[in-house]
Amino acid sequence: MRIVITGGFGFLGREITSTLLRTRTYRGAPIDRLVLADRFVPSGAPEAADPLVRIVRGDLIESLAEVFAEPVDVLIHLAAAVSAECEADFDLGMGANLDTTRALLEAARAQSATGGPTPRLVFSSSVAVYGPDPALPLPSVVSESTLPTPRSSYGIQKLVCEQLVADYTRRGFVDGRVARLMTVSVRPGRPNAAASGFLSGIIREPLAGLPAVCPVRPDLRVALASPRRTVEAILRIAEAERGTGRGRLDGGLPVNLPALTVSVAEMLATLRQVAGDAVADLVTIAPDRDIEAVVGSWPSVFDNTRAATLGLEPDPSFASVVRDYLADHPDAILVGSPHAAGRPDPGL
Amino acid sequence: MRIVITGGFGFLGREITSTLLRTRTYRGAPIDRLVLADRFVPSGAPEAADPLVRIVRGDLIESLAEVFAEPVDVLIHLAAAVSAECEADFDLGMGANLDTTRALLEAARAQSATGGPTPRLVFSSSVAVYGPDPALPLPSVVSESTLPTPRSSYGIQKLVCEQLVADYTRRGFVDGRVARLMTVSVRPGRPNAAASGFLSGIIREPLAGLPAVCPVRPDLRVALASPRRTVEAILRIAEAERGTGRGRLDGGLPVNLPALTVSVAEMLATLRQVAGDAVADLVTIAPDRDIEAVVGSWPSVFDNTRAATLGLEPDPSFASVVRDYLADHPDAILVGSPHAAGRPDPGL
Repeated sequence: MRIVITGGFGFLGREITSTLLRTRTYRGAPIDRLVLADRFVPSGAPEAADPLVRIVRGDLIESLAEVFAEPVDVLIHLAAAVSAECEADFDLGMGANLDTTRALLEAARAQSATGGPTPRLVFSSSVAVYGPDPALPLPSVVSESTLPTPRSSYGIQKLVCEQLVADYTRRGFVDGRVARLMTVSVRPGRPNAAASGFLSGIIREPLAGLPAVCPVRPDLRVALASPRRTVEAILRIAEAERGTGRGRLDGGLPVNLPALTVSVAEMLATLRQVAGDAVADLVTIAPDRDIEAVVGSWPSVFDNTRAATLGLEPDPSFASVVRDYLADHPDAILVGSPHAAGRPDPGL
Repeated sequence: MRIVITGGFGFLGREITSTLLRTRTYRGAPIDRLVLADRFVPSGAPEAADPLVRIVRGDLIESLAEVFAEPVDVLIHLAAAVSAECEADFDLGMGANLDTTRALLEAARAQSATGGPTPRLVFSSSVAVYGPDPALPLPSVVSESTLPTPRSSYGIQKLVCEQLVADYTRRGFVDGRVARLMTVSVRPGRPNAAASGFLSGIIREPLAGLPAVCPVRPDLRVALASPRRTVEAILRIAEAERGTGRGRLDGGLPVNLPALTVSVAEMLATLRQVAGDAVADLVTIAPDRDIEAVVGSWPSVFDNTRAATLGLEPDPSFASVVRDYLADHPDAILVGSPHAAGRPDPGL
């Protein structure tokens, strides 16, 4: 069983890699090879030392021959330019998101057309496919049957790739599945160029003793999923058999990952409850019209039925999200700083 | 005012050309140039003699420099590979439909980015974007807010181009509009490779004294528009101002052309009524599973509200459709043939 992860050294790529290297199986079969493809490979990444891992470094389109040098059974396609990048640089987004995905689909098709296995492909799409059209406001609850009318180039590129994955699948070139990711919070590490980046930053930075700016009004409601739930969902979608009934993937529609709906005010109140006033006071509210417009255009309440069929549930509360973050990243908290209130109550 | 029609020598291209060369105006302004771009240009086409007309012959991608040699104000993009071709030859469809449209959008963007006019672009999409997903049957009445889940590569390619047109428009690169064409019936001339071709053939061929095969069961219902209504709608959408209210184009959604819903049995009954038993008996019912699957996957009943806002109404009856065909193509009827019943009652 050979698995490829594109964007393998991005945040989600590393989380998925870590899970797969722990279980060393996929649908009960041993993993023989885990290919991590990425433009940037951090030096000293511990994954590189694992005998299952092979690293393909460079632009994905130029690396496809190397990625497919051995037959590929499963592709988890995470590599992408993020929302704010695509809005700032249209050509970059079309190249990194549309052209790259199409080239990947073609390489997968070439493998199956020449007698190799038909690769299973998980395409990571996004909640950013949804947006309000001037003539068609979003419904109060969004599901996979809601018409996406993206309000960003990123959302358009994701939606276009979803359609290509659907057609390559219908024609039998690949066995494609689309996971529409919610905003992931709390992401560890450094801020990225996503318009939604602050939804991690307003928790992560203060916990580390750093100031953070919240660029939206606190009553804005958002749909979130923790890294744990996101990784679990991507792997569940990768492993699911097709068909109807519990645990199976029915029809060709994408799967919206299960979403926890919270307001930014509730997120900040949770931070205050967990880490105290000094930490929570590190957040400054300074609405930025552009970011508020982008993030405010995304739906915040989802019908999670389709994900539930696959056994996927949203995070139960934002307190649980923060608790997971603290458990998974104990070093991310500045213990004893004048701002931080120290380790939070583990019973939170 | 310079107008470009791609696929300018296709059936709809010639009908639109004929209308524009008659009015010689677009939104009240004189047309200075009508560029007809097509891979095939029939010899002796009368349009070629008109001083307004310039012909660009060849593959559209290779001809873009010539198409945009003078500033373009309006683009009516009809050039495409049809449904059955795209299903038979995946690469042909991706090239002729997706790559060509993207190149056209890029050329239009380059014009506006370098100080030229922002072209108005009408993209001809299709009812074939709709199809039943195994997990999401089509609603009994389809509107522009219905989620398209295409069941053909042609439908996917059209839907992908719709999304690109929407984003190029949102970003101000072009002023794009999407017209989703219904199956056009009765098309004159010879059969084409569209799966829906028989919906013209079962009327056109018998009227010319020729046998015709109907490859679907007669109770299948279809959504049709006559050539007259289709041309009227494309030009109306090309001319409409943006905004809300009567005659204006609201929001970014496509416009589904107004549809007349009829069963194939009703179509054949109309033929019998118009042309008599001998003509109607030239039609043989011989269901073809593949064609029935494709055509049967398209919705047949539409909510025509959005089109009605633009003043567009469906054909009032199939008898009216046949009457228009006979009026527009008097030579297409084999008068006095042993099969044909002669000129039909003009009062039909």
